[in-house]
Amino acid sequence: MSDARIPPSERTRLRRLHERGRYDREAVHAILDATPLAQLGTVVDGSPRVTPTFQWRAGDRVYWHGSSASQALRAAEDGEVCLSVCLLDGLVLARSGFFHSANYRSLTIFGRARKVSDPDEKLARLETFIERLFPGRWSTLRPVTPQELKATSVLSLPIEEASAKIRTGPPGDDEPDCSLPVWAGVLPIRMLVEPPLPDPRMPAGVAEPRYLRTLKLG
Amino acid sequence: MSDARIPPSERTRLRRLHERGRYDREAVHAILDATPLAQLGTVVDGSPRVTPTFQWRAGDRVYWHGSSASQALRAAEDGEVCLSVCLLDGLVLARSGFFHSANYRSLTIFGRARKVSDPDEKLARLETFIERLFPGRWSTLRPVTPQELKATSVLSLPIEEASAKIRTGPPGDDEPDCSLPVWAGVLPIRMLVEPPLPDPRMPAGVAEPRYLRTLKLG
Repeated sequence: MSDARIPPSERTRLRRLHERGRYDREAVHAILDATPLAQLGTVVDGSPRVTPTFQWRAGDRVYWHGSSASQALRAAEDGEVCLSVCLLDGLVLARSGFFHSANYRSLTIFGRARKVSDPDEKLARLETFIERLFPGRWSTLRPVTPQELKATSVLSLPIEEASAKIRTGPPGDDEPDCSLPVWAGVLPIRMLVEPPLPDPRMPAGVAEPRYLRTLKLG
Repeated sequence: MSDARIPPSERTRLRRLHERGRYDREAVHAILDATPLAQLGTVVDGSPRVTPTFQWRAGDRVYWHGSSASQALRAAEDGEVCLSVCLLDGLVLARSGFFHSANYRSLTIFGRARKVSDPDEKLARLETFIERLFPGRWSTLRPVTPQELKATSVLSLPIEEASAKIRTGPPGDDEPDCSLPVWAGVLPIRMLVEPPLPDPRMPAGVAEPRYLRTLKLG
């Protein structure tokens, strides 16, 4: 995971994304769209704080939400944040300890968060979150109450100052080490979405939505 | 993922772990041992920084490593850090947007990092990292050179000031919503370790180590 282990050709370092090409933007969006799980970095009383959260993308912004009472969310409203998404794609086994590595896709976005304060916009963003994972679900749900909406904070960050790193492929051992009789290669890892577990409290006869069997993550 | 969505009974909040019982410590260790992937939070020039990294446990300390030149590692040496591990175990689909949630195991450890400066201790810690994932592998590898050891920083944090949160089970909808004809339940997610991909540069006849087929993550 350390920079030292990633050949420069496999890095994509993105700064001010709007100045870069369509390819960079697509690579960044693809990482965000691959998993809802992110880690939000904030500074609380001068100390670092990392909070797991769900993220979703709408256009060129990334969104997340949580309880309006959450300390991490309140810290995000007031200052700079760092949102990090990392997908572990494999363990890379080399002939020496030093060249062991990981295959992964990682994205870090920096910036100042904006709180979505307009209730209609907030609702629209929450709808996007559900619809991205489960297309067609939002309109089937019991509507959000004004009280629930008030208890939920939605924040966003422009996808602009961002750093993406991707490592793929076999270990990067020095050539002389490759003749050693040591097993080397990759142990691939992926996220598996398993068959749905229906809530026992559900009434009989509710059809299973198609998106439960088609969702792919990772 | 927000606190609002986790019933209090499902939370384990741990402060000063040495004052707590064996059960809490085991729960925390189990999360660390379930995946090598962590996110390291630091403060660089007053701004939050989150860096994906590998972590491993040795006794009551958590370790990570990287290039000695890494900015995030140097920031960690000088100040407070926050190490976060989160395993996403499922998406929780409720009858209302508000009660949608995640099943997960999350751990955040706070504290001041210590750099491992003794070369023998550093080597021993790196050995632990490899051996935890691949028992028996370390002694088969080409030995670490003094130059490689110098280029690698190993840091650690006591597993003491920590907060673990675990959510399991079906959605937490209010009872009246449960009669609605909306599909509700859990879409389980897990990390899958797939069959190994041998490096084409490996000489013929190298046996496949057993640990490649027995490693379980998540």
